[in-house]
Amino acid sequence: MSKHASLPGFRDFHPEEMARRTQVMSAWREVARRYGFEEYDGPPLESLELYIEKSGPEIVNQLFNFTDKGGRDVALRPEMTPTLVRMLGTKIKGMPRPVRWYSTPQLFRYEKQQRGRLREHFQLNMDIIGEESVLSDADLLASALDVLRILGLTAADVVARVSDRRLLHAALVELGVTEESMAIAYNVIDKVERDPRELCLARLGEIGLDRDRAGKALSLTDMTLDQFAAAHPGNEVIAKVADDLRVYFAALASLGFGDWATFDMKIVRGLAYYTGIVFEIFDRKGELRAICGGGRYDRLFSALAGVDVPALGFGFGDVVLGELLKDRGLAATASRQLDAVVVAVDDSSREAALQTVARLRGAGRAVIFPYRTGAVGKALKAASSSGARDAIMIGPDEAARGVMKVKRLADGSERETTVEEYLAGTT
Amino acid sequence: MSKHASLPGFRDFHPEEMARRTQVMSAWREVARRYGFEEYDGPPLESLELYIEKSGPEIVNQLFNFTDKGGRDVALRPEMTPTLVRMLGTKIKGMPRPVRWYSTPQLFRYEKQQRGRLREHFQLNMDIIGEESVLSDADLLASALDVLRILGLTAADVVARVSDRRLLHAALVELGVTEESMAIAYNVIDKVERDPRELCLARLGEIGLDRDRAGKALSLTDMTLDQFAAAHPGNEVIAKVADDLRVYFAALASLGFGDWATFDMKIVRGLAYYTGIVFEIFDRKGELRAICGGGRYDRLFSALAGVDVPALGFGFGDVVLGELLKDRGLAATASRQLDAVVVAVDDSSREAALQTVARLRGAGRAVIFPYRTGAVGKALKAASSSGARDAIMIGPDEAARGVMKVKRLADGSERETTVEEYLAGTT
Repeated sequence: MSKHASLPGFRDFHPEEMARRTQVMSAWREVARRYGFEEYDGPPLESLELYIEKSGPEIVNQLFNFTDKGGRDVALRPEMTPTLVRMLGTKIKGMPRPVRWYSTPQLFRYEKQQRGRLREHFQLNMDIIGEESVLSDADLLASALDVLRILGLTAADVVARVSDRRLLHAALVELGVTEESMAIAYNVIDKVERDPRELCLARLGEIGLDRDRAGKALSLTDMTLDQFAAAHPGNEVIAKVADDLRVYFAALASLGFGDWATFDMKIVRGLAYYTGIVFEIFDRKGELRAICGGGRYDRLFSALAGVDVPALGFGFGDVVLGELLKDRGLAATASRQLDAVVVAVDDSSREAALQTVARLRGAGRAVIFPYRTGAVGKALKAASSSGARDAIMIGPDEAARGVMKVKRLADGSERETTVEEYLAGTT
Repeated sequence: MSKHASLPGFRDFHPEEMARRTQVMSAWREVARRYGFEEYDGPPLESLELYIEKSGPEIVNQLFNFTDKGGRDVALRPEMTPTLVRMLGTKIKGMPRPVRWYSTPQLFRYEKQQRGRLREHFQLNMDIIGEESVLSDADLLASALDVLRILGLTAADVVARVSDRRLLHAALVELGVTEESMAIAYNVIDKVERDPRELCLARLGEIGLDRDRAGKALSLTDMTLDQFAAAHPGNEVIAKVADDLRVYFAALASLGFGDWATFDMKIVRGLAYYTGIVFEIFDRKGELRAICGGGRYDRLFSALAGVDVPALGFGFGDVVLGELLKDRGLAATASRQLDAVVVAVDDSSREAALQTVARLRGAGRAVIFPYRTGAVGKALKAASSSGARDAIMIGPDEAARGVMKVKRLADGSERETTVEEYLAGTT
């Protein structure tokens, strides 16, 4: 069996890798808890139709899909939102709003095999359903940023770039872009940082923008919010959205993330379903892909579940974040923390030693004991290399007197104590 | 999309079900931590061959298997041990032993559709690799029982029934069972509680045991360990294993689980690979299937990975345990615990309110705020029904003075305090 490897694009998590996964997962859960989100999960295997309905039949090329033994067309989940809509769709009408739900699923895509391209990853999904207020958008982004803060990153390491689909839409309409050409215009703006300026102008030309208006469209992407608003006097949609965004950024600042977010019209988000504020979080050095992305998708529940309810959310994967933490020296290293190794000096002390093990574990301490009695020197050596804080030795004398010898392995200091004193930390 | 359900045999975890899953998962992890186990995980999708090699080609009928877009025969993992052996097989030689590893995978089987029969479940796997001592067997069973204890169950609720493959094997050899017929004899013993006595005798007759010896074989299953040893004088294997088991039960008692375990020759374990002590944990009332089962499988690494290393482990699923916790009224109910809802009395107090939210969350409190300002009465009502402990109100006067009004929702009592005092618990 050693000849088998894991499948290409799938990770094994040995304890050292698992420690890093747990570090990220714990930060995700802790933030979700602090922000009052409730956890849910769905099956990793769903009906294939669920994904086709949301993303069209092309999605199938990217899926792990198959026909099961009952003849059902099924797929490993590539994203969580369809499951969220399926689970909430029928129930949301009777629930107090807004609903704050989160999940940390493993997701699967049959990606083309490339270096560093995985076919699975874990992703925090946080969604707020049933709320239109821009304060919910601010609270949602704050939660994503708080994950990074809890992990030790700062506003010097990362930045959330924020835009609003409605602004871009209104400005492009002013410039004469038609609804039919809107997707192409979005795509040009989305790629403005990567594509040469001439290509961008040419592509906008193809959808009917002359060179002057195409240049104006591109110049939108460098504006501050105030510049953008000032550049569109009399446009009521833009005035209203700009006011919303000012409330949004003020709320983010009050929530402690003023330095972490910036207005940036270049953020479009690939997915077609966003309807309002959208954001992506990047490392400031720009070395990595987006860490997290999301936004408002007010029409998805209506389209898929027939329930007209506003919603917003994000997906926050473990892979780019993991790279960033490693780069910054913030990744977890220890795969376990042992408080003590309890060593029975001889067979006659075993009962007392195991009772001590049980009492320490019962009080929440992480404790192991050698499975062979005797060789105390060897046991102490193993205790040291196990990373345990203490070696606790119990011989016939200690057993008779109800005490134990505690050796602090970092400095070799020894003391005699009782279990009670040890647990109380008084020795 | 609301028309789609989850696939048959797959569970959706709404927050209330997720709370129960988290309760079990937390107990699993907490015990694994206390017992010094390190967490690992593998991919949910593995090469089909991995499972065929361990269990033979018949296993394929029970799997979610398919050919992926790269032409690989793959399967959703039905159990964790093949992954464990794959991951450790090549590395175990260089690792300090014993290795204590645990995992909590979701596992998948294409079971025949029946009421209550699921096609997925979560399973705690704890394994000790590289240790022969019977004390490791005792420690392993103690960890499984400690999960139950941490969840509020007692020795009055559950019992671990323990046997040893070597005892049964030696006794059956004494009675004249050949190696070729051993599997059939095991199967008869395994079913002795369910099958009529005459059927058991007849099946043993078919493999050459006369009625007297067949009766003796069946009578083995009611013996205590001492009776069993006394019934086989001069059998060195049985004498040695009986001594080991006495050490095992004594160690279990020292570890606090003397009342939780009993010797029971009727425990055989279906899987062919067990080589020593085996156990299954049941509810004492006998209403449910086995809660947990495992034992020693010293030859599996040798057979599958070509590395001769002893090993033992168990699988502990979430479904039967979940039923037991519900039956005993011990299942978790709350899907989240909110410390406070912070209400800004008007727009001018929003900044102070959000700053308060940020400080409370930063100190680890679970806090939400209404996404619309105004309607304080409505906000307080929502706070009550959210299950939060406190409603915190901040108006212009409180904001100016740097204080907040705290209403304890359980009794309606109100007090004015600062964030510092609130966090210190001094008001």
